[in-house]
Amino acid sequence: MASDTELQAMRTALEAARSTARTLPNPRVGCVLLAPSGEVLAVGAHHGAGTAHAEVDALQQAGDAARGATAVVTLEPCAHTGRTGPCVDALLAAGVARVVHGQSDPNPEAAGGAERLRAAGVDVEGGVLAEDAAALNVEWTFAVTHGRPFVTWKYAATMDGLSAAPDGSSKWITSSEARRDVQRFRAEADAIMAGTGAVLADDPRLTVRDADDLPLPYAQQPLRVVVGESRIPSYYRVFDRVAPTLLVQTREPDEVLSKMVENGVRHVWLEGGPRLAGGFWNAGLVDRVIGYIAPAMLGSGRAALEGEAATLADLRPIDLDDVTRIGPDIRIIGTPGRAPREEMP
Amino acid sequence: MASDTELQAMRTALEAARSTARTLPNPRVGCVLLAPSGEVLAVGAHHGAGTAHAEVDALQQAGDAARGATAVVTLEPCAHTGRTGPCVDALLAAGVARVVHGQSDPNPEAAGGAERLRAAGVDVEGGVLAEDAAALNVEWTFAVTHGRPFVTWKYAATMDGLSAAPDGSSKWITSSEARRDVQRFRAEADAIMAGTGAVLADDPRLTVRDADDLPLPYAQQPLRVVVGESRIPSYYRVFDRVAPTLLVQTREPDEVLSKMVENGVRHVWLEGGPRLAGGFWNAGLVDRVIGYIAPAMLGSGRAALEGEAATLADLRPIDLDDVTRIGPDIRIIGTPGRAPREEMP
Repeated sequence: MASDTELQAMRTALEAARSTARTLPNPRVGCVLLAPSGEVLAVGAHHGAGTAHAEVDALQQAGDAARGATAVVTLEPCAHTGRTGPCVDALLAAGVARVVHGQSDPNPEAAGGAERLRAAGVDVEGGVLAEDAAALNVEWTFAVTHGRPFVTWKYAATMDGLSAAPDGSSKWITSSEARRDVQRFRAEADAIMAGTGAVLADDPRLTVRDADDLPLPYAQQPLRVVVGESRIPSYYRVFDRVAPTLLVQTREPDEVLSKMVENGVRHVWLEGGPRLAGGFWNAGLVDRVIGYIAPAMLGSGRAALEGEAATLADLRPIDLDDVTRIGPDIRIIGTPGRAPREEMP
Repeated sequence: MASDTELQAMRTALEAARSTARTLPNPRVGCVLLAPSGEVLAVGAHHGAGTAHAEVDALQQAGDAARGATAVVTLEPCAHTGRTGPCVDALLAAGVARVVHGQSDPNPEAAGGAERLRAAGVDVEGGVLAEDAAALNVEWTFAVTHGRPFVTWKYAATMDGLSAAPDGSSKWITSSEARRDVQRFRAEADAIMAGTGAVLADDPRLTVRDADDLPLPYAQQPLRVVVGESRIPSYYRVFDRVAPTLLVQTREPDEVLSKMVENGVRHVWLEGGPRLAGGFWNAGLVDRVIGYIAPAMLGSGRAALEGEAATLADLRPIDLDDVTRIGPDIRIIGTPGRAPREEMP
């Protein structure tokens, strides 16, 4: 059983992980090193691919004091070598006596850490505040267990479900507050995807920008993914040097996601157009919906989604996770239910 | 200045008015009679066309004790003869010494009550808790000042704005909780309107029903108004004997509303279909929108509204009054802004 001191340390580790910016394609992880007396020796966190893992970050701070210490980690220490060596080796080398971890590593490539530690004589306890720990990395966990990125589909529409007027004009249906909110979410994804039609129509930037509308540094930008077979002229903004861009010349969602897996993408933020969104929706490949509903009606125009329902039995339910006013708009966050066809025998 | 006792009596009168069922085409009115000592002699309320007005209701309870009393009324006493005689005459005949009222009578036919009371030597004070009093009768006040019924448009749609699947199926997009909520609102209107297309497609009852889905008595049913030029066979449910039905063979909103004025309608509840709703919407004749949004997507089907926007400048804003979860659904209540064309010079 984890002691009260260890539980408290786990809360600190969770907080350290939560406070990091996006770490994708890696998970958010926090680590607290406790001396045998219960004193906190170090608080570490992982800050993104290519930087130290949380355990190593904490061990480096603690130095020799780590010998005989307890490492409290939000995620089971990894046993594989990626851009950095396995954390298990670092913990063993430092002489850590006990490891308390939260979520078990769902990544088949990286798992086995607890086993290796135990084999080396370390006292290991897992599953401590595991739900809180798993909540840190919902999209990452999904991606490593499903072998494809978690897909968040965002749309903006009027109360009558329209995302553009009949002439294609769509700037701006929702408020600046809603657009700012979108930026905050985009920053959590490691890819931003749009169809070639939407790119040709709106010339979007597909970047993450700060409150002054200035783009974050290149290294912090998600991958821009432009999907479809229409040619985009080189002067379009998706080809500027603000962020990397991947062109995927297909509209088959499975193929698009495979391309993303190759590029290490764990969480893709899907924006328009309705045809691309419809392709993912119909294939049951939307894992979260975020809709911004403007308090307005158009009465005619282009739908947010081009689906393929024929009758009401094709209605796809969504579990509402949150309904909030964002400035003058309404934001609805939900999780799509299983596609009707998936429920067939 | 109204005394504290009179203010308290006005609150009691407001409560009495609020607790009545629908009184349309008449307003909701409450009346408290106070003895010179401040003692409450009677609390009266109006209970609908053909029954006593609130003042008369209170006077009848008080009998001779009303002589020298103060009448505290939520609405300026009427000076005209409708199905019942003017309240002003009743107050004078009873020997009431002072009248404190809330909202001034906006009805040009019935106004002038305060003036006539003053001319007869009664001490009159108006405007006491006038906002609360006016809030009792928003739709009635609108109707008597605009010379047409207040129009509430209700729709139910998916998150992508669709009210029916491509094959026309629409039962049920929203939950039983939402449909129950609709019944509560319908009971507040004095007409329920639908287009012939919607009637032919869905054979709706257009009645007010209780929690057991049993219709209220005929006398408590709003007028059913079926609008359009298609012929409805006599076996359709709108022709059953549960409620009266008016056929209006035009789709011109102005003409439809004129017909309703002739029938004494103050507040019409507009349901489908999208073409009828679009006609009223485009004409700027929707005064309140109540949308029930089901947490689901269809992807293809029939829109809730057939409007005539061409470009984003035609977007008609809505001031949100309320956003609430009703069972699994989201209910949005709003007030349409002015039509773009109304804002032109």
